[in-house]
Amino acid sequence: MIIDCHGHYTTAPKALQVYRDAQIAALKDPSRPRAKGVVAISDDEIRESLENAQLKLQRERGTDVTIFSPRASAMAHHVGDSMTSLDWSQHCNDLIARVCALYPRHFVGVCQLPQSPGVPPESCIPELERCVNDLGFIGCNLNPDPSGGHWTSPPLTDRCWYPLYEKMVELDVPAMVHVSSSCNPNFHATGAHYINADTTVFMQFVLGDLFKDFPTLRFIIPHGGGAVPYHWGRYRGLAQDLKRPPLDELIRDHVFFDTCVYHQPGIDLLLKVVPVANILFGSEMLGAVRGIDPETGRHFDDTRRYIEAATSMSDADKQQIFECNARKVYPRIAKALASIERAVA
Amino acid sequence: MIIDCHGHYTTAPKALQVYRDAQIAALKDPSRPRAKGVVAISDDEIRESLENAQLKLQRERGTDVTIFSPRASAMAHHVGDSMTSLDWSQHCNDLIARVCALYPRHFVGVCQLPQSPGVPPESCIPELERCVNDLGFIGCNLNPDPSGGHWTSPPLTDRCWYPLYEKMVELDVPAMVHVSSSCNPNFHATGAHYINADTTVFMQFVLGDLFKDFPTLRFIIPHGGGAVPYHWGRYRGLAQDLKRPPLDELIRDHVFFDTCVYHQPGIDLLLKVVPVANILFGSEMLGAVRGIDPETGRHFDDTRRYIEAATSMSDADKQQIFECNARKVYPRIAKALASIERAVA
Repeated sequence: MIIDCHGHYTTAPKALQVYRDAQIAALKDPSRPRAKGVVAISDDEIRESLENAQLKLQRERGTDVTIFSPRASAMAHHVGDSMTSLDWSQHCNDLIARVCALYPRHFVGVCQLPQSPGVPPESCIPELERCVNDLGFIGCNLNPDPSGGHWTSPPLTDRCWYPLYEKMVELDVPAMVHVSSSCNPNFHATGAHYINADTTVFMQFVLGDLFKDFPTLRFIIPHGGGAVPYHWGRYRGLAQDLKRPPLDELIRDHVFFDTCVYHQPGIDLLLKVVPVANILFGSEMLGAVRGIDPETGRHFDDTRRYIEAATSMSDADKQQIFECNARKVYPRIAKALASIERAVA
Repeated sequence: MIIDCHGHYTTAPKALQVYRDAQIAALKDPSRPRAKGVVAISDDEIRESLENAQLKLQRERGTDVTIFSPRASAMAHHVGDSMTSLDWSQHCNDLIARVCALYPRHFVGVCQLPQSPGVPPESCIPELERCVNDLGFIGCNLNPDPSGGHWTSPPLTDRCWYPLYEKMVELDVPAMVHVSSSCNPNFHATGAHYINADTTVFMQFVLGDLFKDFPTLRFIIPHGGGAVPYHWGRYRGLAQDLKRPPLDELIRDHVFFDTCVYHQPGIDLLLKVVPVANILFGSEMLGAVRGIDPETGRHFDDTRRYIEAATSMSDADKQQIFECNARKVYPRIAKALASIERAVA
């Protein structure tokens, strides 16, 4: 089985964006009473949005299940206030739940959190509980910069995040560290802000004692860990100079990188320097890069091919990356996969 | 000959920091008349600060000349105002000029610019001219984020930077894109802010038409180009999706990466994906990482070894990285090196 740990619903039916546009437009008139409103999307529209996109690519590429969450760039926690964020997150999460109900063999849900700049992260706990307990989700996406490129929140190692981590530990769900769009003109979203956030948070983890306080807390750092594997020597050296634990030890049961690195030499490096137990297969399709690489004739984001072509790693290790590690990091996936397996049997 | 394009005076005599501490302390009392003051350092103190540090490592590692600039993390353009920054930059640059005068065979100068958040970059032109025309410097360090981690300036492709670029072109000097310390608690300086800035600015260059407007403008992106080579496929794909020129073409005579990547797999990747003409040897010693790698028994930042150990590249290509590319990117180095060569002959 191949589990893709990183997929967003980037192809959601237009009605979702229509809702969002209206929600944002309504912010301009603060005197107007606010209502959560409805997102009118039929099951057929959901099917249509996936059949020629994620499902087609799953079939073509031979991947089985995608850990699926709302479109990351659209989370835009910096827009409006915490009520804006809550209404929007609930609609997005409900839509993911419908996707998973329609295609239980192909998608397992991860939620968007209703974060808002300056609002304590514990405000997200009820929505996390709803998604995990009521909708059957297995994790969440956590935005380390709800300001959208101004980086006004404390680091993820700050105690203000602890109530949320306590709930994650209690529910036994991990978080993928994932920023959203950037309203800072310096940062292109997928070409700079995403990658910077990955790098930034890794270094926060190196400096902090978060995993002493939460021995079972787990984070996935997407996009192959940002700049980290390329600079693995730098980070090993910094950890050593700063009297921090060796990286392998520090990340062991806590920090995992996905394989969203869109060329063979990058994947080769990742597989070479990062312990196999800390790598989860991911593609982020359809995501940041949708074209075909003229050098290979294949989609840039068809990351399964790079892993299979990597010569430095045994098949058993590859299976760890394709399946076993995801089961370990997202233990709640077992229940979802068991129903698939029953259906197949 | 081996030219190290990336060295900072991180071991400057204590009197420099004493000056800086006093300058910062004086900012607390705005009513006090401001004076540039003096930095009292003897030639012997300069010699002592280098003999057991940069010069010793040059000898041990067999590198010849370091393109040398003030300590990057100490530029701290966000402290005080433009007068603070000008006084501080001039003292730091004068000290680099003294280093180069004492050791003309070993150091060639690059200047710190007196940037200040919100102040137009053209305010730096007189100091750039002084350093190049009067002190014999061959380039400058340009901080894309003078706010120190808040990213309040426009992208480097914005026209507000153009007057400075016009002067760089006129003087035929390149800029190394280099941030300073971070006053944003999210960003560890050398472990996140530096690398993020490299990644950020590369993507700005991908999106902008800067090099159409300045066909001879040249930038060095340090720290191996941040995350960019590791994500070369992502950037090739983004450029393609965004209808931008292919990366090789876009960077050809304009964007260069140094080799400050502190492990063999990282250097192997860099040499594999980035055109050889766009790579300059650099080590940043003594810089971010000062320890010895227990896996190799050598200093993490002894980057010459990684390049020499790389099997994918010919000796001629390596010589391009060690010497020829630096001569091309910093044409004013020829004069400095000619005097070395005369002295040797």
